[in-house]
Amino acid sequence: MINVAIIGASGYTGLELIKILISHPKFHITYIATSSGDKQLTDIHPSLAKVYNLNVDKADSQKVAQKADLAFLALPHKTAMFYAKELLNLGVKVVDLSADYRLKLKTYEKFYTTHIDKKNLKNAVYGMPELNRKKIKKASLVANPGCYPTATILGILPFLNLIDSKYPIMIDAKSGVTGAGKGLKDISHYVNINENIFGYAPLSHRHSPEIKEKLEMISGKKLNINFVPHLLPISRGMLVSSYLLLKKNIDPIQILEKFYNDTPFVRICKNPVDVKSTSGTNFCDIFAKMEGKTLFISSSIDNLLRGASSAAVVNANLMSGFEEDLGIPKIAYVP
Amino acid sequence: MINVAIIGASGYTGLELIKILISHPKFHITYIATSSGDKQLTDIHPSLAKVYNLNVDKADSQKVAQKADLAFLALPHKTAMFYAKELLNLGVKVVDLSADYRLKLKTYEKFYTTHIDKKNLKNAVYGMPELNRKKIKKASLVANPGCYPTATILGILPFLNLIDSKYPIMIDAKSGVTGAGKGLKDISHYVNINENIFGYAPLSHRHSPEIKEKLEMISGKKLNINFVPHLLPISRGMLVSSYLLLKKNIDPIQILEKFYNDTPFVRICKNPVDVKSTSGTNFCDIFAKMEGKTLFISSSIDNLLRGASSAAVVNANLMSGFEEDLGIPKIAYVP
Amino acid sequence: MINVAIIGASGYTGLELIKILISHPKFHITYIATSSGDKQLTDIHPSLAKVYNLNVDKADSQKVAQKADLAFLALPHKTAMFYAKELLNLGVKVVDLSADYRLKLKTYEKFYTTHIDKKNLKNAVYGMPELNRKKIKKASLVANPGCYPTATILGILPFLNLIDSKYPIMIDAKSGVTGAGKGLKDISHYVNINENIFGYAPLSHRHSPEIKEKLEMISGKKLNINFVPHLLPISRGMLVSSYLLLKKNIDPIQILEKFYNDTPFVRICKNPVDVKSTSGTNFCDIFAKMEGKTLFISSSIDNLLRGASSAAVVNANLMSGFEEDLGIPKIAYVP
Amino acid sequence: MINVAIIGASGYTGLELIKILISHPKFHITYIATSSGDKQLTDIHPSLAKVYNLNVDKADSQKVAQKADLAFLALPHKTAMFYAKELLNLGVKVVDLSADYRLKLKTYEKFYTTHIDKKNLKNAVYGMPELNRKKIKKASLVANPGCYPTATILGILPFLNLIDSKYPIMIDAKSGVTGAGKGLKDISHYVNINENIFGYAPLSHRHSPEIKEKLEMISGKKLNINFVPHLLPISRGMLVSSYLLLKKNIDPIQILEKFYNDTPFVRICKNPVDVKSTSGTNFCDIFAKMEGKTLFISSSIDNLLRGASSAAVVNANLMSGFEEDLGIPKIAYVP
Repeated sequence: MINVAIIGASGYTGLELIKILISHPKFHITYIATSSGDKQLTDIHPSLAKVYNLNVDKADSQKVAQKADLAFLALPHKTAMFYAKELLNLGVKVVDLSADYRLKLKTYEKFYTTHIDKKNLKNAVYGMPELNRKKIKKASLVANPGCYPTATILGILPFLNLIDSKYPIMIDAKSGVTGAGKGLKDISHYVNINENIFGYAPLSHRHSPEIKEKLEMISGKKLNINFVPHLLPISRGMLVSSYLLLKKNIDPIQILEKFYNDTPFVRICKNPVDVKSTSGTNFCDIFAKMEGKTLFISSSIDNLLRGASSAAVVNANLMSGFEEDLGIPKIAYVP
Repeated sequence: MINVAIIGASGYTGLELIKILISHPKFHITYIATSSGDKQLTDIHPSLAKVYNLNVDKADSQKVAQKADLAFLALPHKTAMFYAKELLNLGVKVVDLSADYRLKLKTYEKFYTTHIDKKNLKNAVYGMPELNRKKIKKASLVANPGCYPTATILGILPFLNLIDSKYPIMIDAKSGVTGAGKGLKDISHYVNINENIFGYAPLSHRHSPEIKEKLEMISGKKLNINFVPHLLPISRGMLVSSYLLLKKNIDPIQILEKFYNDTPFVRICKNPVDVKSTSGTNFCDIFAKMEGKTLFISSSIDNLLRGASSAAVVNANLMSGFEEDLGIPKIAYVP
Repeated sequence: MINVAIIGASGYTGLELIKILISHPKFHITYIATSSGDKQLTDIHPSLAKVYNLNVDKADSQKVAQKADLAFLALPHKTAMFYAKELLNLGVKVVDLSADYRLKLKTYEKFYTTHIDKKNLKNAVYGMPELNRKKIKKASLVANPGCYPTATILGILPFLNLIDSKYPIMIDAKSGVTGAGKGLKDISHYVNINENIFGYAPLSHRHSPEIKEKLEMISGKKLNINFVPHLLPISRGMLVSSYLLLKKNIDPIQILEKFYNDTPFVRICKNPVDVKSTSGTNFCDIFAKMEGKTLFISSSIDNLLRGASSAAVVNANLMSGFEEDLGIPKIAYVP
Repeated sequence: MINVAIIGASGYTGLELIKILISHPKFHITYIATSSGDKQLTDIHPSLAKVYNLNVDKADSQKVAQKADLAFLALPHKTAMFYAKELLNLGVKVVDLSADYRLKLKTYEKFYTTHIDKKNLKNAVYGMPELNRKKIKKASLVANPGCYPTATILGILPFLNLIDSKYPIMIDAKSGVTGAGKGLKDISHYVNINENIFGYAPLSHRHSPEIKEKLEMISGKKLNINFVPHLLPISRGMLVSSYLLLKKNIDPIQILEKFYNDTPFVRICKNPVDVKSTSGTNFCDIFAKMEGKTLFISSSIDNLLRGASSAAVVNANLMSGFEEDLGIPKIAYVP
């Protein structure tokens, strides 16, 4: 058993972390904190009544170090690196769900803010097992990928060396409202998003540089990434439609199946994927179709799980020497 | 390990049974059947890809008896008793999710059809642990309660001996669309139920005699039960609002808490319950409030789980000598 | 043409008033105000672009009196009576959509606040044409009924003299989220109400005394009213299920049809009503069924229209000597 | 007054036609038919009770010719041309909502079926006023555009001569479930599409050749059109996201505003458009943004109105010498 801490327990991803870790056979939650503290977990998340409870502390790195070997940070950008720096210093392994360690320093500071932990940033591993499984196993700091980048990169990855980079890549992404967070905002007022859909931050969302940086690093090519997210009238789930041109005509299903052959959490589908089949799970479902030189890729994940919390526990599994899929949710919220 | 069979795997409750049994530590699925057979389970339920698969047989009692000690019947009324009769004869224990063994002969034949298995009907145990825990443990045939009766009876039960039976009991129930089944019908066409709600079978639904018969048997009093179900624009979940008059003013929360004190799957709430907190679980959440002599009870369940499949596995747990909550889902689909 | 003003244009009912009045053949909007003012209407309601625009003033009774003969007040309780008092003094007729003039002084002050316009309160007419058509025609101040009371009272009205008042009346009401207003609240966060339903303010909602007072005034009997509203995952629409006991068995459809025979905005349905058929209209659809001595009544309205804004314009029609249905929406948002 | 007939009154677009024509000041419905006939309109569409009624005939061209000057055909492909041919022969003007007269013969026969009315096909006018206003005014046969082509073409049109046609155009479209029709299908079962989204017919939908043919005809250039529609969990509404490369950097809002300057039914938005602001109206809302050489265009329509029925009445207005916007719905279903 490995003792783990969760810092940032009040939001959606914090709750999802707790839900997975409660029934995980090898992780034992010993510490839960929020920014304010002094509560019972069931006060924050009443649906856990008669299931699980614990005192919620005001976040304190020293206490984490006393109680846990590994900490999950489900905190806003900027706050996360503050705790990560302290925790790593105290010998606690960290899986950070924020953007703070996902990007190169230059990219981060351009799109976010000044980085206060440049040293650890260099050693952080981007926590996508399909890319970095070996590095994650040895890492003490893993940066959990963003939800949009996860679905997008997993879809495009198998085709990277076939891409005709003269042409731009168009990514039309759609996310459920949990992606906009638990805070009260106009866009997540029921009446505004019900029976509705709209794009937001078109061609300027902060997940776009994450996608671009990763795909360029892997391929060694300059890529023209155009990314537009949309908000959907569903609670959870994410669908990404990617459009790109290849240098030659190939059988995309065959390529996908070969590429993800021995991966536990990617499923290749012969029909267009939907979000319901991945909701509640860590799966990424992928469909692709070619017509002429155009490749259409459709990938689906649960934005809160594969896009955040279950991916974080997968990373913790690997960092702890466990099987990748140990205690990870696989059964979808169907019907 | 106990080997179990599922007959009727294509519908929603069949899928939910499979999802629970896959990860159950003591039940081992050895046989899955539908009326047509000759398929793979992942053809019927594609969301199980890379999770679990098995051949799906054409239902055959002899084969069940060879392979399993206990069978779950997720079949339509009338078909269920045909298989139950054969299986019991062959020594297989049965949990029947249909209405075939829930009612006294007279009530059943009035509201359903001629009963073809009168002998077993007499010995069938109504599978509500909060009522019949001891009997279920010894039963070889358990009739799983209907979804509306489950939510209604659990709400009213603690107050039964306080009811002023001069007054009628009014039950206003609301169910998600999975309650209307997987078949294509006008009422479950998205456009007809989205942004809509309506009552159906008012004062004449077949779950009404089930509620009446059980509450009268327990209380020994004649009760005037008036039951109106409504269809809601949600996929799963059921909320039952019951209105009744008591002989004296009491503290309903206190009575509920005392009554369900040592029960694992009933939660008493100090604020009105919602359906999301029970969706995905076997919990029944109950709130009640008194004003003058009127008692308002609000109870919530997942219609497919506590109202069908997880309740069935709880019954199988008890019939097999296991803990009531072994392998039973407790973590809600929140958010 | 009659010049009209709208005070309180920023909320949902303000918008609905504007939408109706824009295409009304005899009312001409000359003044629109909010509490802050200094905007264009299309800034507040962008869906009106290329349809209709006007400057939005900071509410000022003197200006209203210069520009309009009749004012609609779509303001919060308490603020409304402040303006109504001034406007009536200046000779402007008022249709008030708040609760400020709906109740007798004693009831109002018990459930709301101190009344600052007791004089006009006495002369205010409760704006339900099916009850008070003649009085409304002569009124200079009409109190528009609440949404829940409208649907409830219209359903129960035809049966009032048949009610066995020994028994309580149980009212289980369901409303769409627009009923909770445009402001940001936890209960109207998409993720909280989507795939959910819950009761609120059970047996203690402020519309309950409005229902009780009106039904008791009309019937001259003491009635035991028990009212529980629920929030539904739909944007607009309201369904009220009422349960009561009658002194004798009658044919409820016949009674309804006779009672509402020459009324333009009540429709009697032979099947349970739904909310979609009234959404977008001023109709109240009513179904009823009797079983033994129990009467079940199901009534449906659009909470923003018949429950507020179109009812207000109907009242203004009557106060202005126009036909009741002049310019009133009748065509539902189906499909 | 011009007498009009509607053939095909049972589906969604038939109902929308009726709803518009009921309150149209110059069109008078004299004949309504379905394939079976012998009903009252309120039997097929109960929400029209107390609003409007008429006998529904079994479709017969001779009777149409006796009663009407212009006919709307809301029929399936292939059935429509059968009636159109007869009606034109009898001197009745036709607005056809099917695909039968939208495409050149060769394209039609490749993607649909053998054409049985080649003569009229040649003279049919594609009913998009922003393209063909003058021709529509003189036409006796107008082919109403498809819903996806309407939203797509209106978005791309102002940029056609700026497009760098070396690059493909990627069109990611999203439609509400009314687009899948009233018939019972697995994809429109509430449980299958609620909390879900998926692509269908990717790169092979029949609206793709319609988009391609029209854009190529107007531009005189070969274009590489890649079109993927998605089904959304909303009843009505359509959002189209188009991605293309231009030869130079321009201000897209300025271009849009200039292009649609004197058009009544296109609105240019400075923020990304949503579908709710056009639901219930004939508007097409368009937003566009440029980044580098990539142009993102987001256009929104009501699939049943601007994508079918209100567009058809606009065409009938023009064919009859009326103002384009006479009796056309402009007020959105907001909130």
